[in-house]
Amino acid sequence: MKITAKEIYESLEAIHRESPVVHNITNYVVMNITANALLAVGASPVMAHAEEEVTEMVNLASSLVINIGTLSEHWIKAMFLAATQAAKQGIPCILDPVGAGATAYRTRTARELINRQPPTIIRGNASEIMALYDDQTKTKGVDSAASSDDAISMARILSETYQCVVCVSGVVDYIVEGEKILKIENGHPLMSRVTGLGCTASALCGAFAAVEKNPFAAVAFAMAVMGIAGEMAAAVSAGPGSFQVHFLDHLHALSQQQISERLKTGIE
Amino acid sequence: MKITAKEIYESLEAIHRESPVVHNITNYVVMNITANALLAVGASPVMAHAEEEVTEMVNLASSLVINIGTLSEHWIKAMFLAATQAAKQGIPCILDPVGAGATAYRTRTARELINRQPPTIIRGNASEIMALYDDQTKTKGVDSAASSDDAISMARILSETYQCVVCVSGVVDYIVEGEKILKIENGHPLMSRVTGLGCTASALCGAFAAVEKNPFAAVAFAMAVMGIAGEMAAAVSAGPGSFQVHFLDHLHALSQQQISERLKTGIE
Amino acid sequence: MKITAKEIYESLEAIHRESPVVHNITNYVVMNITANALLAVGASPVMAHAEEEVTEMVNLASSLVINIGTLSEHWIKAMFLAATQAAKQGIPCILDPVGAGATAYRTRTARELINRQPPTIIRGNASEIMALYDDQTKTKGVDSAASSDDAISMARILSETYQCVVCVSGVVDYIVEGEKILKIENGHPLMSRVTGLGCTASALCGAFAAVEKNPFAAVAFAMAVMGIAGEMAAAVSAGPGSFQVHFLDHLHALSQQQISERLKTGIE
Repeated sequence: MKITAKEIYESLEAIHRESPVVHNITNYVVMNITANALLAVGASPVMAHAEEEVTEMVNLASSLVINIGTLSEHWIKAMFLAATQAAKQGIPCILDPVGAGATAYRTRTARELINRQPPTIIRGNASEIMALYDDQTKTKGVDSAASSDDAISMARILSETYQCVVCVSGVVDYIVEGEKILKIENGHPLMSRVTGLGCTASALCGAFAAVEKNPFAAVAFAMAVMGIAGEMAAAVSAGPGSFQVHFLDHLHALSQQQISERLKTGIE
Repeated sequence: MKITAKEIYESLEAIHRESPVVHNITNYVVMNITANALLAVGASPVMAHAEEEVTEMVNLASSLVINIGTLSEHWIKAMFLAATQAAKQGIPCILDPVGAGATAYRTRTARELINRQPPTIIRGNASEIMALYDDQTKTKGVDSAASSDDAISMARILSETYQCVVCVSGVVDYIVEGEKILKIENGHPLMSRVTGLGCTASALCGAFAAVEKNPFAAVAFAMAVMGIAGEMAAAVSAGPGSFQVHFLDHLHALSQQQISERLKTGIE
Repeated sequence: MKITAKEIYESLEAIHRESPVVHNITNYVVMNITANALLAVGASPVMAHAEEEVTEMVNLASSLVINIGTLSEHWIKAMFLAATQAAKQGIPCILDPVGAGATAYRTRTARELINRQPPTIIRGNASEIMALYDDQTKTKGVDSAASSDDAISMARILSETYQCVVCVSGVVDYIVEGEKILKIENGHPLMSRVTGLGCTASALCGAFAAVEKNPFAAVAFAMAVMGIAGEMAAAVSAGPGSFQVHFLDHLHALSQQQISERLKTGIE
């Protein structure tokens, strides 16, 4: 499995052309930036979390993104309802287990979401991915305290058990499906100084999975686009404030040539 | 009915001078940008949604903005309480029926809000406005799937039935009050790639309605200011990230001459 | 009590080095900007408000920031639980009584929070601080309608009664602990045109208090850093949009020399 700049760009063009509705049940902190990132790549984000309407909203959507970053009871119920409906509708569901491992509540919720209705894609940092299976892992708040390498074998077990694609993101992003592994080495350290970029990556997985049948490819495209727009933005930014501005601008205008010049990918 | 740059600017000056408290019960996605837009024009935004305090907060406010973009039960109760109190206090109430037509929950809530206590101003995209009356309209998530022209006759019916001003926003914004129609043709396509600008327009309607007795004029001023600041921002922006920055800067510094040079308005 | 640029910078370096987890239970409007400001100074922000997990999250944190800007019942319960646990753990708790005085609900909640488990630090504008003790004060929405000077004697009473540090922020920030008063005169008027900068100041108090044993010094450092980054940002900003960008950039890159050149502090 390799990915090319041409494939990534064609998938981006498909998002712009089809403007898929991406339904997000996400956390309060990142709602604005994830909506803006989805708009920047041409998708049509919608946020809805009431039990009264999530099922109906899923029916209008081309993909569903569930992010547990600021959980509470009503939101969890809505997540289960939406995940069930996404499976019924046959649309991809992306799970971002933000802070799994940090508290029992998050770990339990993430595991139950996976058990009851396995998502198409799981994306998290190393600690979060490990916490989905391993009771020994501790997360430092919502930041990772484990190395990506440690998390890869866990990702493989998750992928095989639940028949899903797992992405362990970090300095290097690893995309795992059974025995297959692809790594994306784009990105920039400044990205860890801006809130919600992990969540944004998950949202973009939703946009790509909405137009790209192969979820492994969709995740790879999303992570590549995140990393490339991120390093282009970092190159012209004085700090995390200007980074956010340039990131959205680059995300919106990414060309095939820019992707081609920068894409760093390989097989582990 | 025509509006002039001088009138718009004087109303903006009144907002800066009086700094009216605009009480927002709005959605999670746009709270930050709407608060910042209100501050940029000189208003004093406040957000409060608890049933325990909305009535009291309305009493401190010069206008109320209700936006149903991320509904849930407690928030709906607060919206009804606040709308009732706004009517008692005689302050203008602006309703933004975000996503009406997308789910029954939103459509029903928007209609009930209008029925129980007609707002002073309703602002939405074409799909949303049509959904307030017409069961045949479908909304694409929170984006419009109908043309503004289609929605104008519906806006007129709404306006006459509920004695309110209705704004159908889009590439051209139509402001309707009974037989009167004014169009504002300012704006830029990039504005559809940034989340929350429709919601921001509704918030600005709240700011202008707080200082301008005539709600038809208040909506026209708000839409003109949105569109003009938007096109000025787009002219110097590399994409949706920098757009947001320039938009707030221009909103904050808009001069009478800038309004005068750019205002595109007319009668349908 | 005086503070020096060297002390402030060393404390900033400690935040970058230790990357303390700062647990925020804050309002919807400012979650994104406060998280970004905490990341910019090197801290590790986490947001969690569910009763099911706040206690556990506090155990992972080096400080707790409670902000009542968009209250509702479940959030209040979480605030009490978290404050109690912070005291048990011996980590500093910062209270931002946003809008105290505006509604009985906010005033009562703020007072109960202080009474049941006195925070380490209270930071608010003059109206808010006065409302914590004085039933005659009225707040204009969430903006102050009282002068800082008026609030200083109230701050002293609060400080002595609850054995905490109280910061009355405004054009001049006053930090009060018993008889001690320090003033910070940095800052810029544009800061009042951007939402959430008061809340951001409270969040930064959390970051500094996590690495600095003396809470009086922690508040002074936080307010100085806010004010200095703010005036540096304002000097290169066209308005409130670009201000936000430059503010985060400067917060992230603040040098000892910049602090030294700009610090305006004194004893009342």
